[in-house]
Amino acid sequence: MSIQEDLKPLFYPETVAVIGASNTPGKIGHIILKVLKSSVKKLYPVNPRENEILGLKVYNRIEDLPENISMAVITISAVHAVEAVRSCAQKGVKIAVIVSGGFGETGEKGLLLEDELRTIHKEYGIRLMGPNSLGIFLPETGLDTIFVEHGDKALSGGGGIAFITQSGSVGTEALGIASNTGYGMRAFIGLGNKVDLTETDFLEYFSRDNDTNCLAFYSESIDDGKIFLENAREVSKKKAIIILKAGRTEAGQSAVSSHTGKLAGSDNVVNGAFRQYGIQRAFDEEEICDASKTLSMLPVPRSNRVAVITAAGGYGVMCTDYIEQKDARIKLHLADFSDETNKRLKNINLPFASIHNPVDITASAGDDIYVETLDAVLKDEGVDLVICLTFFTPPAITKDLVKKISDKALEYEKPVITFAQYGPFTNKYLKEFYDRGMVGFSSVYRTVRAARFLVERNHILNIFGEENE
Amino acid sequence: MSIQEDLKPLFYPETVAVIGASNTPGKIGHIILKVLKSSVKKLYPVNPRENEILGLKVYNRIEDLPENISMAVITISAVHAVEAVRSCAQKGVKIAVIVSGGFGETGEKGLLLEDELRTIHKEYGIRLMGPNSLGIFLPETGLDTIFVEHGDKALSGGGGIAFITQSGSVGTEALGIASNTGYGMRAFIGLGNKVDLTETDFLEYFSRDNDTNCLAFYSESIDDGKIFLENAREVSKKKAIIILKAGRTEAGQSAVSSHTGKLAGSDNVVNGAFRQYGIQRAFDEEEICDASKTLSMLPVPRSNRVAVITAAGGYGVMCTDYIEQKDARIKLHLADFSDETNKRLKNINLPFASIHNPVDITASAGDDIYVETLDAVLKDEGVDLVICLTFFTPPAITKDLVKKISDKALEYEKPVITFAQYGPFTNKYLKEFYDRGMVGFSSVYRTVRAARFLVERNHILNIFGEENE
Repeated sequence: MSIQEDLKPLFYPETVAVIGASNTPGKIGHIILKVLKSSVKKLYPVNPRENEILGLKVYNRIEDLPENISMAVITISAVHAVEAVRSCAQKGVKIAVIVSGGFGETGEKGLLLEDELRTIHKEYGIRLMGPNSLGIFLPETGLDTIFVEHGDKALSGGGGIAFITQSGSVGTEALGIASNTGYGMRAFIGLGNKVDLTETDFLEYFSRDNDTNCLAFYSESIDDGKIFLENAREVSKKKAIIILKAGRTEAGQSAVSSHTGKLAGSDNVVNGAFRQYGIQRAFDEEEICDASKTLSMLPVPRSNRVAVITAAGGYGVMCTDYIEQKDARIKLHLADFSDETNKRLKNINLPFASIHNPVDITASAGDDIYVETLDAVLKDEGVDLVICLTFFTPPAITKDLVKKISDKALEYEKPVITFAQYGPFTNKYLKEFYDRGMVGFSSVYRTVRAARFLVERNHILNIFGEENE
Repeated sequence: MSIQEDLKPLFYPETVAVIGASNTPGKIGHIILKVLKSSVKKLYPVNPRENEILGLKVYNRIEDLPENISMAVITISAVHAVEAVRSCAQKGVKIAVIVSGGFGETGEKGLLLEDELRTIHKEYGIRLMGPNSLGIFLPETGLDTIFVEHGDKALSGGGGIAFITQSGSVGTEALGIASNTGYGMRAFIGLGNKVDLTETDFLEYFSRDNDTNCLAFYSESIDDGKIFLENAREVSKKKAIIILKAGRTEAGQSAVSSHTGKLAGSDNVVNGAFRQYGIQRAFDEEEICDASKTLSMLPVPRSNRVAVITAAGGYGVMCTDYIEQKDARIKLHLADFSDETNKRLKNINLPFASIHNPVDITASAGDDIYVETLDAVLKDEGVDLVICLTFFTPPAITKDLVKKISDKALEYEKPVITFAQYGPFTNKYLKEFYDRGMVGFSSVYRTVRAARFLVERNHILNIFGEENE
């Protein structure tokens, strides 16, 4: 059976049972049932001592459930969870999402319980996600097993990023960004302790999913590392793959060891392997979110020549510093404009503007000068990527600038990354950029860093391109 | 006359005239009058063609104004602004805040107008702030001439940071942070084109102001650089001074030159001079805000040994990487705990916790384990600074954690910096930390960077200390 078939009960379950559903608000078995109620039609709470929860008929035993349960969400404590999974398997449940903690992350006894889960999986064929997993969130249908508050889910729809994370914390960060400034998630997958389903399974699943264009992983260790890497190499020719892997210093690696109980490999080896297999690496929680948002939404630049447009001169200087500074990831360069572009910029701009890259249109320039300037630099063959630094200081610039920049940027096949800043309203503008198909950040540093990920992606595609010739 | 006396009409004006007050909402002369109305009792709009604006009696000519005007805010266009400043000077107005643009930033003609302003200042003694200035915001009294929306001003009160900025954009960023996650501003000063009042004047003013404990400057060029640096050296023995100065790469410096029309000095010289004079340097808009917030609120650590507490192991690793990575600013080190601390951490924590630094209490640990762990590391003589990585994932950790960490941290004289993350609610938790006297950030990178500024401050104080012996 293909992985697409195998995981259908996870992504598109027709019937869902919640083992450990509860009538007590605040309990995980209550939160999950409540959240699932809005997206799943055939929802069956299981609890030995209740008759009705949230208006739904309760089943007292797993054995009493109807046939053909697609997915069971297990919320009860570890020892009981293992027994429940066995009953589910016997009942023919296709997949169990084990949200419960208290397994391998708590030591020897928990590890033995994980062995039992593996045995059940092998014996019955039931697929298992977790334990210690946040489960799944699929904006397409609203399916959601995440018991951590994660904001306005409606805002998370419509994107191409598959976010596959071993740890819940990193995942909820991405969901937070989705609510605040926009983040186009295709699906959120909480892997947890990976007794069955691993990164490699979801790499395969999302590589075949047409709605996914970027895969973001947070993994503390990848058990079947070799297969994963080999598959990634193929997938990365079509879709960007980014992995957050910490532990690049000696002390960091030693922290990995004491945290996971596993010997951390040399970081140079990890870096080398990632590059070789077309994988981009992130080093922190913000970086993986920024990078995946950018890689998912923007076209890949042909090379590394960046044009900067600003209405505040000092910000142009800061941006230039970040573009031209040494960086282990990839080199960026300020673009040199053609004579034609220079002539046009001179015509468009106020006489006291600075038309050299970074172009400082000055605070006296209005929306139209901004957009004409953007058009001029986008048209220049020597420009691969444009950074627009935007401010919304009255009176020259108006709130229409977001729409005008977005419309102009989308006329071209070149990536345009925006930086937006307007005091407490920054996120509002960033969200509006996002809603118009644009990527924006609230700091100059993060804006340039995002550009670097895009140029690195081009570098990867070039290497594989040459190989294919 | 001392600078304190000289600037009294700016900080504590008894009477304020708004030249160019307008009845048209959205116009700068309307916005400023409206904002000033709530903090200034004797407020006089001046406009040749109106009788009443916002319920206030309008004066048609500057000559008609009552005697003893403390401050005039000039909002009219450049050429008229110069004439208005002359009339104000003749009327005996103490200080004019010239908000109008169209001066030196727009070329030759504007520079000549600035010369006229200098002449008026010299002839009449009227003090001038600007032109092209955002003016002043003083949370203590609510005095506010800033025409850019900057959020809930009530949130900005009560801090020790004097933020003195040549450019309005960088300043509004700080005001935005004030609204979002807290930023304790003593005063905001928009210098603009500095025909009279400069960084050096405000350095002197705030050095004598007991409510200021940190001075943050954004300057594209400091004209009286030598005096400024010499004074800074003295001030920095008592109060932290941080300057945002971009242009650290060659391309950045060349961008400075085309933006300011001035030759940018070698960046190595700038760096060297800053260090020598006890000044800390920021490189971007986020860094100056984060650094000043931290330097203003937290005690200075005795050295560079950092303890990290986390409930999510992966974040401990990321944090360790940032602590131990090479950095041009200053070295940080993961602290080694004493045997006593290790013993106590073992007693407090769950058996599967990782009690080595970074301490991973695990997601199974609740508030009390977190706070006991914090107490143990704060007590350790080998720990100079603590970073608390906080997550609010139910059920073990509750919302009370913010209060509990804050109460514990404030029992000690050591700095505790928090990182908070909880999806879309991150800012809410950061703001609560701030309201309880704590400094927190939303990314691991920024959290460690803030620690670096604190340790650098200790380094500066040590150098001056030795000199004094």
